[in-house]
Parts: sequence; structure tokens; C-alpha cells
Amino acid sequence: VKLSELAERIDCRLDGDGEIEIHRVAGIQDAGEGDVTFLANPKYEKTIHATRASAVILRDAAPAAPCAMLRAKDPYLAFARAVALFAPAWKPSPGVHALAAVASDAVLGRDVSIGAFVAIGEGTVIGDNTVIFPNVTIGPGARVGRDCVIHSNVAIRERVTIGDRVILQNGVVIGGDGYGFVRRGDGTHEKIPQVATVVIEDDVELGANTTVDRPAVGETRIKSGTKLDNLVMIGHGVTIGRNVLMAAQVGIAGSTHIDDDVVFGGQVGVGGHLTIGRGAIAVGQSGVTNSLDPGARVAGYPAIDNHEWRKSSALFRRLPELKRRIEALEAQIASLSSSRADKPERSSE
Amino acid sequence: VKLSELAERIDCRLDGDGEIEIHRVAGIQDAGEGDVTFLANPKYEKTIHATRASAVILRDAAPAAPCAMLRAKDPYLAFARAVALFAPAWKPSPGVHALAAVASDAVLGRDVSIGAFVAIGEGTVIGDNTVIFPNVTIGPGARVGRDCVIHSNVAIRERVTIGDRVILQNGVVIGGDGYGFVRRGDGTHEKIPQVATVVIEDDVELGANTTVDRPAVGETRIKSGTKLDNLVMIGHGVTIGRNVLMAAQVGIAGSTHIDDDVVFGGQVGVGGHLTIGRGAIAVGQSGVTNSLDPGARVAGYPAIDNHEWRKSSALFRRLPELKRRIEALEAQIASLSSSRADKPERSSE
Amino acid sequence: VKLSELAERIDCRLDGDGEIEIHRVAGIQDAGEGDVTFLANPKYEKTIHATRASAVILRDAAPAAPCAMLRAKDPYLAFARAVALFAPAWKPSPGVHALAAVASDAVLGRDVSIGAFVAIGEGTVIGDNTVIFPNVTIGPGARVGRDCVIHSNVAIRERVTIGDRVILQNGVVIGGDGYGFVRRGDGTHEKIPQVATVVIEDDVELGANTTVDRPAVGETRIKSGTKLDNLVMIGHGVTIGRNVLMAAQVGIAGSTHIDDDVVFGGQVGVGGHLTIGRGAIAVGQSGVTNSLDPGARVAGYPAIDNHEWRKSSALFRRLPELKRRIEALEAQIASLSSSRADKPERSSE
Repeated sequence: VKLSELAERIDCRLDGDGEIEIHRVAGIQDAGEGDVTFLANPKYEKTIHATRASAVILRDAAPAAPCAMLRAKDPYLAFARAVALFAPAWKPSPGVHALAAVASDAVLGRDVSIGAFVAIGEGTVIGDNTVIFPNVTIGPGARVGRDCVIHSNVAIRERVTIGDRVILQNGVVIGGDGYGFVRRGDGTHEKIPQVATVVIEDDVELGANTTVDRPAVGETRIKSGTKLDNLVMIGHGVTIGRNVLMAAQVGIAGSTHIDDDVVFGGQVGVGGHLTIGRGAIAVGQSGVTNSLDPGARVAGYPAIDNHEWRKSSALFRRLPELKRRIEALEAQIASLSSSRADKPERSSE
Repeated sequence: VKLSELAERIDCRLDGDGEIEIHRVAGIQDAGEGDVTFLANPKYEKTIHATRASAVILRDAAPAAPCAMLRAKDPYLAFARAVALFAPAWKPSPGVHALAAVASDAVLGRDVSIGAFVAIGEGTVIGDNTVIFPNVTIGPGARVGRDCVIHSNVAIRERVTIGDRVILQNGVVIGGDGYGFVRRGDGTHEKIPQVATVVIEDDVELGANTTVDRPAVGETRIKSGTKLDNLVMIGHGVTIGRNVLMAAQVGIAGSTHIDDDVVFGGQVGVGGHLTIGRGAIAVGQSGVTNSLDPGARVAGYPAIDNHEWRKSSALFRRLPELKRRIEALEAQIASLSSSRADKPERSSE
Repeated sequence: VKLSELAERIDCRLDGDGEIEIHRVAGIQDAGEGDVTFLANPKYEKTIHATRASAVILRDAAPAAPCAMLRAKDPYLAFARAVALFAPAWKPSPGVHALAAVASDAVLGRDVSIGAFVAIGEGTVIGDNTVIFPNVTIGPGARVGRDCVIHSNVAIRERVTIGDRVILQNGVVIGGDGYGFVRRGDGTHEKIPQVATVVIEDDVELGANTTVDRPAVGETRIKSGTKLDNLVMIGHGVTIGRNVLMAAQVGIAGSTHIDDDVVFGGQVGVGGHLTIGRGAIAVGQSGVTNSLDPGARVAGYPAIDNHEWRKSSALFRRLPELKRRIEALEAQIASLSSSRADKPERSSE
């Protein structure tokens, strides 16, 4: 594609030769002739002089590059769109593979693509244009919306509801039984049947091998626009708001309510029956043991205010020094006291 | 079902109109007419006045509710049984799906249900009434007991033994190779063949995408009644006792022995070659680096006594204050000393 | 096999009766007549007097055992080879199962074994002698090398490249979309298409349910000889060097570069865009938030020098004591000061 056309399609201001042919989007270190690269983070802007790319996407205020420039208000968004433009347009063709097992009363929308070894249970409904890759198991009684992409080896259990434009990476499990047991008098545990359901709303994406459990009563719900990374665990009865982001290996215990726009770093753990306020942020590996106010920023275990945690954390490292200072004080006090101890009133100690 | 009948079937004392028709079990906030709800935790009992449920399951000593009451010694257990009573009785019918691949010498018990795209290897034995959902791979040479439920996309590897009434949620892997390598002189690693086996005893339940590894020699064993949540990792050669509970994302390194009735919160990590005594408890995210005595309660990383950890943890937060107090003491001492330094005997310092 | 022959085949010096028949390798506690056991760790050498094994593999300098001895320079390596010698030689026979779905233009090498319900996409290439177990999905456009073992329920996504002698345990996902989104003005997130690829070099082994993501541009790469345990998460655009070891549940955020010979304990988390120097070690549960120098040994969260962390960690536990000592000092100072406060110059305070 010509650079002038690319500029138009990703909504950038062109500064340079619009006739250059661009073949690929590449990272700044890998980019060469015919490549467009990008600079979203101002702190890397000084590296741009060394690029061999034919063009670079960068913010309006960035210094000039030694190649053609595509100026954007949000260069990362422009980059995303450039990647989409050059992405291989590969998508399996519509139709049901001869080696799929689709229940006779399942309802398939228009232009659905069902891969080999996909099992679709009784009464399941699949929306228009949805693509289901091989070795996926769905239903019975599940509903999957339109324009979804269900990658291979996903399990969507009975009666689960999935919205439109949902993307499930490989190995995702939705609707596995929640971890609910009652201790009997003899120390064994009775299973509480986990028979309620899970609702995944529109535009959600779940990463590879992430699991979302179903509860005994009520529902587990992930609201629209939320994106979870790989190997995340969502416990039974949890509600997750809109546009929430969770990095890999986060775990949310049962019945916790997470409001819109919350952001969790990787490996964060959140206890059960908590409320996480809108826009709260927990940095990676935090252990959230109490409910969080909207806008809270926390770190550590147990998670406390991020700013406070950073100060304590810096001092944790200096504990040996603090101990030495206490010992020095004790020695000085002892010395001061002993000189006073010559006086009769302290000699009894 | 009539409330009087429900009371009888879940072993509760009825206080109210036994003729009410109950259609569903629901959480206290969602419950409406025709629903039975429950109150297991005394601290929520004050919320009961606002319920719109037709009936509530609650403990003997709980204050009266504004609806019919089902009094139980253990209301959570009564709730579990009520859920079971109303659960959809859905279970796939017995038989082997036409698109399953069962080895000719595999032995299937009575009324076994084998879904589509299930691969069962040579010499594998499946017990009576066991249900195997689609896309499961078992064997060769594996043994699965009776009345088990194996959800879709599970992998049970060669020669693994599974007891009776075991429930494996979707994506579980049993018998993957343990992580065993020997460093060679040139820095590469030689694989120690992991050819011994895994035994899962009766009444065990494993959560979605949980993995249990096989060792080189000996066995990995999970004893009866133990319940593990999702994304748990059990290393090779580990032994887990009876009625153990582990929340999601716990990891147990190789050759560790865990005794009966142990309880681990989510994301706990336990080192290799340790012994965890009976009934020990580790709270979420603990890192257990030493063996634990029976009944121990630990927290933190490295995990220490829970009570002690709570005290230290509270002080971690106050480290900036403690530092200021040390600084204040230093200033005071300096001031005291300097006034003494006027005296000849300290002027040499 | 005769002990003399075993000694020769695993390169040990025989001290004892070479005519003994050995049938099995067993752990020191389980070993009985006809078994060979091993002692790799010097600290267990004193337990050897109680063994009932017929022979023991042990280091040259170890004290004598009450049975035949196989002396080795590296007894753990000799043990590994003994296990391999006795391992069941089970391997599925070559051929493509009648219920596999192999694209007509896929290229299969000699003696490839393809199990039931394996889906191989267009243009995918599988090398000689590679074994693919049931319910695996590969491609389209993927390349898998020779002598690989791909266990059941693995997903290898489009255009991924896998080297020779790679072992993928069950449920591994390679080439799932990286977690890449751009926040739009309205708070929703636009997906950056993750269309670049993943390269897994020769002799890599990945544990059960481990996931390796693909990036938008560039590549994710795991270099030869690296071994990752179960449930590990490798983010998009990460590069991992040669002979790296990562225990279970480690998570590496996007674009981080990990050099050769690095070792991570279980549940370690590493931030994005970092560089981890050659041979660096992070103990279990560390949270690595900064780049590490070659040879660094770190612990804790945020991860600091391991030696320093141990000292601080020991003092964390003693924080209540340190606080009491501060309080005692404050009381003593107050007492010293008040006696001085009788003097006029301090009475104003």
C-alpha cells in the first residue's frame, strides 16, 4: 500500500513521500525498507534517528525522524490500525466440518464456521458469522452470539451465555463448577451443586487457559468490553464490570464484585465477597484482602495504598540498617544511663 | 415442591406455611416469590428483614425472618441439599458416541456414557455409570472408576488410576510428565523419563485446567475426598492426604507430602521435599518454604505463624513512622550527648 | 537386566555382584529386591544403611551401602539413564488415525503418528517421527520439526514454528493472541491484532497447560534447550534464551528479554520490557520489577538481592520486637530528658 493511502486509512497526517510502498508493520529495531514502524512512548523517541524503516507513526509533538512520518494524536491506536490493515486476512470458510458433532436441534446462524471435532450440544444457539475452531465443546443449552471467535480446545459448558464479538483464546473454560463444598461432621465435604450459569457480555476477550466458574445460585457475569489475559481464574458468583483489564494469572475468589474500569497487574489475588470500586488499580502480585474504594491504587500483600506501600517497601530493604541504628541508640542510652547510674537513685537496677 | 416437603427432604424444622410452592433456590438479594434463600453466615442475618423470598433456610438461633423459615443445625448443608433438589437433572444418556475412538481392548462398564471425539487408549478400563464428555483423551492403560464425571477437554495420561465418584472439571491434565531434568556438563539438561504413575483416589474433585504430574519413580497420589480448585499445579511425586482443600492457582513442588485436612488459600506456593502436617492452614499467597507442624496456621513469604505474621505485617505498614521515631531518638540522644560532651571525658570522641 | 550390564550402560563403576538381576528403578524408601535405587543428595547418604534395594547408584565419595553399588561421578544423571533403560517403550505406531482431519496440502514426514481427532490445517508441515496425540489442533501454516512429542489437547496456532525434539505436555497453547489493546477515548479498548508469530527452538519442553502468546509485530521466541514447567505464561514478544529453567506458574509479561541459563522458581512474576541477564536466578514467588544483571540472585517483591532479602526478611519477623525496643528507648530518653528538664534551659519545652 502507498504511504499516502496508509496515512488516510489510519487517520494520520503525512509528512514525507506519499509514493513510498509499505509492505509491513515492524518494531523499531526490526524495521527496514518498506516497513512502517511506530513510536508510542515518548521516552524512546531519541532512538528514532537510528531506524531503517521507510516510515514511522509518531505523535504530533515528537521530534522529526530521518524517514517519512505519519503524525497521529494517538500513535498507538494508529499503529493498532496499521497492524490490522496488513494482517493476513485468514479466516476459515463458513460451513460445518464433516467431522463435527452438532446436535440436531442446535441452531446455527448464517455463515457460521464450525471446525473438525467440535461438539455442540442439544439446544445450543450459535450466532451469525461466528467461527468455532477444532476440538471445541459447547453446551448443551448454551448461547453464543454473533461474530465471535472461539479458538481450539475451548470448553463452554451447559447453559452458558456468550455475547457478540466475544473472543475466547485456546483452552478457555467457561462454566466449570465453582469451588463450593460444605464440611460434614466427619471432616468430608459435600458438593454444593453448581448449577447456575455464567454470562459473558459483548466484546469480551479471554486469554488462553483462563477459567470462569459457575455458581450454585445467581450467576457469574463478565460485562462488556472486559479483557482478561491468560490463565486467569474467575471464581463462582463473581461480577466483573465493563472495560476491566486483568493481566495473566490473576485469581478472583467467589462472590466478589468488581466495578467498571478496574485494572489488575499479573498474578494479583483478590479475596472472596469483596467489592472493588470503579477504576481501582492493583499492581502485579498484590493480594487484595479488603474491599477497595473507587480509584484506589494498591500494592503489596495485604494490599495497601500504593504510595504508602512504596515507602514501606523501600524501608523493608533498609531493615538491617534500622536495626543497627536501634542498637547504636541502645548502646548510647546505656552509656548515658550508666554514667547517671553512679548516682544512688539508679543503682538499684 | 411444597415447602413442607422441602423441609423434610433437606432435614429442616419448618416454621411457617408448609403449603407454599417453592420453585427455585436463590441468593438473598435475588430471591423473590416462590424462591427459598439461605443465611449461613450470622453476620448477614440482619439483612434478612429485606428479603422478598418465600422462605429462608437459617440456623436454629437466628432471629426470625419476615417469611417462612426452615431451621437447620447446619444451614449451609441444608442449602447445598436444596440446590441439589432443584438442580436440572441433566446427564447424557449412556452409550458410546459414533465419533468416539475407543480401543478394541478397552473395557467399558455398564451404563457408561462416552461423548463425541473421546479417545480411549488400549487396555483402558472405565467403571460403571461414568460419564465422559467430548474431546477427552484417556490412556492407554488407564483405569477410571465408577460414577465419575470427566468433563470435556480433560487429558488422563497412560497408566493413570482414577477412583470412584471422581469429578474432573474441563481441561484437567493428569499424568503429564513431571519437571525432572539433570544438568549436563555443557549446561544443557537431560530429561529424566517420567514413567511412574498418578493415583487419584475416590471422591476427589479437581478444578478446571488443574494439572497433576507423574514422577520418574514411585507415584503421585491424591487421597480420597480431596478437592482442588482451578489452575492448581501438583508436582511429581507429591502425596496429598484426605479431605484436603486447595483454592485456585496453588502450586505444590515435587516430592512434598501433605497430610489430611490441610487447607490452602488461593495462589499459595509450597516448596519441594517438605512435609505439611495434618490440618495445617496457609492463607492465600503464602509461600511455604519449610515443613509445617500439624495444625500450623501460616501466612506470608516466607510463611510464618499467622498470628505473628499479622503483627509484623501491621508494622510493615508503619515502617515510615518507626523510622521517624528512630530519627527523633537519634536527634534527642545527640542533643543529650552534646550537652554532656561539654564535659572533658567525652570530648575525645 | 544384569547389574554388570546396567553398570556399563549407565557408565558406572560396579562394586558388588554383577550377576544380580535388576527389574526396576525405585525411590530409596520403596526399593526392594530386584530394584536399583539412587542417592544423589549427600545429605541423605546416612539413610542408605536401611535400604532393601539390591543395588544403589551413588557418588564416588559416598560411604559404602549394604548392597551392590554403582559408583558414578554424577549419580543423578546415571539415575536418569537407568530410568530411561527401564521405561516402558510405549509409543504409538506410525500412521494417521482414520478420525484425524489433515488438510490435503499438509506435509507429513516419515513415520509420523497422528492420533484420533487431530486437526491439522492447510499448509502445515510435520517432521519425521513426530508423534501427535489425540485432540490436538495445529495450524494452518504451522511447522513442527522432527522427533517431537505433542501430547493430547495441545493447541498450536497458525504459522507457529516448532523445532526438533520439542516436547509439549497436554493442554499447552502456543500462539494464542497476546494481550494487546489500546484504550480509546470512551474507555473501551481496541484490539491490536496479534498477527506475528512464535518460534520454539529445538529440544524445548513445555509443561501442561502452559501458554506462549504471539505478538502484533516481531516474534515471541523460546531458544533451544529451555524447559518450562506447567501453567507458565509467556507474554507476547518475549525472548527466552537457551537452557532456561522456569518452575510452575511463572508469568513473564510482554517484550521482556531473558538471557541463557536463567532459573526461576515457581510463581515468579516478571514485568514487561525488562532484560534478565545470563544465569540470573529468582527464587519462588519473587516479583521482578527491574532488569537483572547477569548472575544476579534475587528474592522478594519487589525482588532484591537474595542475600539482602534474607536479612530483611528475618527482621520483618522481628518487627514487633524492634518496635518494643524503640518504645523502650523512647521511655528511657523521656526519663533521661525529664531529669534534665529540671534544669531551666529545657523547662520551656
